[in-house]
Amino acid sequence: MDLGERSYDVVIGCGLLDEPSAWRSPASDASAMIVSNSTVAPLYLERLARSLQGRHYRVHSVELPDGEQHKDWSTLNKVFDALLDARCERATTLYALGGGVVGDVAGFAAACFMRGVPYIQLPTTLLAQVDSSVGGKTAINHALGKNMIGAFHQPRVVVCDLDTLSTLPDRELRAGLAEVIKYGPIADWAFFEWTERHLDDLLARERPALLHAVGRSCEIKADIVARDEREGGLRAVLNFGHTFGHAIEAGLGFGTWLHGEAVAAGMVMAAALSVRLGMLDSEAAARLTSLLARCGLPVQAPALAIERYIELMRLDKKRRDGETRFTLLEGRGRAVIHPADDALVREVVAQTIRRST
Amino acid sequence: MDLGERSYDVVIGCGLLDEPSAWRSPASDASAMIVSNSTVAPLYLERLARSLQGRHYRVHSVELPDGEQHKDWSTLNKVFDALLDARCERATTLYALGGGVVGDVAGFAAACFMRGVPYIQLPTTLLAQVDSSVGGKTAINHALGKNMIGAFHQPRVVVCDLDTLSTLPDRELRAGLAEVIKYGPIADWAFFEWTERHLDDLLARERPALLHAVGRSCEIKADIVARDEREGGLRAVLNFGHTFGHAIEAGLGFGTWLHGEAVAAGMVMAAALSVRLGMLDSEAAARLTSLLARCGLPVQAPALAIERYIELMRLDKKRRDGETRFTLLEGRGRAVIHPADDALVREVVAQTIRRST
Repeated sequence: MDLGERSYDVVIGCGLLDEPSAWRSPASDASAMIVSNSTVAPLYLERLARSLQGRHYRVHSVELPDGEQHKDWSTLNKVFDALLDARCERATTLYALGGGVVGDVAGFAAACFMRGVPYIQLPTTLLAQVDSSVGGKTAINHALGKNMIGAFHQPRVVVCDLDTLSTLPDRELRAGLAEVIKYGPIADWAFFEWTERHLDDLLARERPALLHAVGRSCEIKADIVARDEREGGLRAVLNFGHTFGHAIEAGLGFGTWLHGEAVAAGMVMAAALSVRLGMLDSEAAARLTSLLARCGLPVQAPALAIERYIELMRLDKKRRDGETRFTLLEGRGRAVIHPADDALVREVVAQTIRRST
Repeated sequence: MDLGERSYDVVIGCGLLDEPSAWRSPASDASAMIVSNSTVAPLYLERLARSLQGRHYRVHSVELPDGEQHKDWSTLNKVFDALLDARCERATTLYALGGGVVGDVAGFAAACFMRGVPYIQLPTTLLAQVDSSVGGKTAINHALGKNMIGAFHQPRVVVCDLDTLSTLPDRELRAGLAEVIKYGPIADWAFFEWTERHLDDLLARERPALLHAVGRSCEIKADIVARDEREGGLRAVLNFGHTFGHAIEAGLGFGTWLHGEAVAAGMVMAAALSVRLGMLDSEAAARLTSLLARCGLPVQAPALAIERYIELMRLDKKRRDGETRFTLLEGRGRAVIHPADDALVREVVAQTIRRST
């Protein structure tokens, strides 16, 4: 991840939790705080804590409730409580051990605690490994919108231990693959075709396929973030499927659909919008829908009222001058930020919505 | 304020609220959100809103409860609620109209809302004009410590309208003078001697004296912050009196003493510690105590248990490797960061504590 003096490594491999020497060792003269959740902590917390003994003055930990519905102020405050109870200091390093929610909450806590302390990402879900752990976006949700309160705060290193994917529930693996599948259409059509060919290997969790998928996803993301760290423009291409996806998540209530599931349906909608605008050929859109369906992901929008979609998308952070803007495909392997008027968006929602059967 | 591409002006004068053309005009194609409090809003909100009409697409406002005890998450969340209710966007500018609490909360809201939006400081108290509005430190308090959760986020411009000081309660004027008095001992002994000579003019709110006091204070602060924006070391000299002062505020409950009052007693204690360590002559310490007393500020520590002081100071953000560090005076007009062992600190607390009479 090339960001000048804030550059850092993304280390991908097996057995990394037990081998902190394989990734850059942080300062050992201060304490460490491992932030995890109630699902991941029983599996991996003790192993990581043991690895960090001797590297840190003291190793503390805090366990958060699991789930997107807990990505809020009260969970964030549990981290602050733990840090202050343990007398942590500005030199304390936070370790985010878990999925996207743990990474986002721990990263935002690190951004705000004493106005900023270092942190390390140890993502244990595919979604977090290929997306949220890289790039320094941290946030919590607000009742009126997802990721509305947050900070740009880069981790010191991102450590993707592929072994942790072996305990990932199947539904979460598939949701993570939605973000892997995203990178091809926006930046590298050859990688999309690779995912078409290797989907079964990925679903079977074969290590070489996972290594390539995580590695190439992180490369593409790092390349985009390096060119636009604070989302001046280009970085928003990573949001393909997310404007519709966030509306789905908020409309159903956070946590009803997994983030990756909402993004899958959102990508189908964004691709349909791209086709409607004459920017993308319909065969490419059909192949994307078909791959997502093979992956067991939703390719229809949930049956919310169409006006509810319009209203929820008005909260999108890309919105400017009162106009909702979408990440759309301009051909295969190329994304752009583009406004679309409400009438057209209504048609696309109507076309992709799930009919009650 | 010289911070490279994040540099900004500190504009000091009279009638500035009515003349936004006198300070740098922000982008007018997005909305504005004025953040104020229940004391300041009735006095100045309408005037500022009128000035901003025509410069912004829309002008919204939110009124926070007044007082340090409200500098917490629930007040911060009122700002987020208002921003989201008003459909504000990443290009929205926040205007902090009020004292230090409004500036800190609005600044932190600007740092976090959609991961960062621009803001402008319009401090209406002397304390905020000479200290908190300049330098980009924003924060809220946590039950276990003051300013524990926050961000470094620089404003686009700081506008000190001296006219607003005419409505400032006398107690708050005196508390603000504590921070003015602070700058001499840490950075410019000649300025300290100027404050000795002009204290009566300042207490009488004479404009030329206020202009010089606010101007010179901001210059000294800006010079220090420019050399150490993120408090790597030097910037901590601005914390003279604050390690003891924060302990006093937390020990009594936030809001019991005004921040400047706690800092006044804290400076007496820090000067006493400097004398004990052989770093400062006792006449300089006595002159500082005497000037603070003339200003009507407390020069004795409140009667908390000595161990409570020690315990509260363990939460200081300057603490490192388990050692509490103080900003002390090394001669007249020069401050340094220096550790002090608990035994000596206990003696200083015992020496300056208020005896119940």
